[in-house]
Amino acid sequence: MLSSPEECEQAFYEALDAADSEAVNDLWLADDDVVCIHPGGPRLTGYSAVKSSWTTILASGPVHARCTLAKSLETPTVALRNVIEEVVVGEGKQQRVVSVLATNVYVKTPAGWKMVLHHASAAPDGGATGGPPVRESTSVLH
Amino acid sequence: MLSSPEECEQAFYEALDAADSEAVNDLWLADDDVVCIHPGGPRLTGYSAVKSSWTTILASGPVHARCTLAKSLETPTVALRNVIEEVVVGEGKQQRVVSVLATNVYVKTPAGWKMVLHHASAAPDGGATGGPPVRESTSVLH
Repeated sequence: MLSSPEECEQAFYEALDAADSEAVNDLWLADDDVVCIHPGGPRLTGYSAVKSSWTTILASGPVHARCTLAKSLETPTVALRNVIEEVVVGEGKQQRVVSVLATNVYVKTPAGWKMVLHHASAAPDGGATGGPPVRESTSVLH
Repeated sequence: MLSSPEECEQAFYEALDAADSEAVNDLWLADDDVVCIHPGGPRLTGYSAVKSSWTTILASGPVHARCTLAKSLETPTVALRNVIEEVVVGEGKQQRVVSVLATNVYVKTPAGWKMVLHHASAAPDGGATGGPPVRESTSVLH
């Protein structure tokens, strides 16, 4: 049982690193309203769809992500954390690190802290905090 | 003063629709830790950077976005809403609607409900809830 949102977040990224989908899925609240968005993917809602996605992803191997620059907002029952994930992709000499922006939300339950939202999207080239403040393509969508 | 997160969210999208950057910026909490990610853009942190981005975007014209399929989590002081924005882009015969996935977080303050996070990213082609549950490119990043 995880006693803080930080512990829940640490357990999440450790489970990704270990390709342990069972551990990842144990961290999620088993609820119809949980939301998970993988980079470039559709919005998945409900525990069953979210669980299935992690099982599929981690069946291909671990996800090595190091989180930096967390911005957080915590209350006694809800915690919001936005992090920059530095994700290792590729193998051998092809290996490189890409930046992913992730918003994670945790809630306190009788069974400890649980994830209820993970919204991840690729950061633009040049790093998550670099680049122009608003790109041309961005202003179209908003 | 906005007395609920729903009112705050409605005011946000109405202000985008009216290209009223002053109204958008009034909805944000003037705090160093607020986070705003426009689709495909870098992570902006702090009120000053966020304000500047909306001023730049809305100087080019309004953003017409209709929100659907909200998933929400509310406590007395924090509200999380994940929505699918149907955004109208282009003009005349070139006009089309694209889907954007957005996570919005609001907090209750003495001055009413304020935005503290907006994380928006393009939904994959085929709609936000369509397409394969996990795409090949997704499994690389996670």
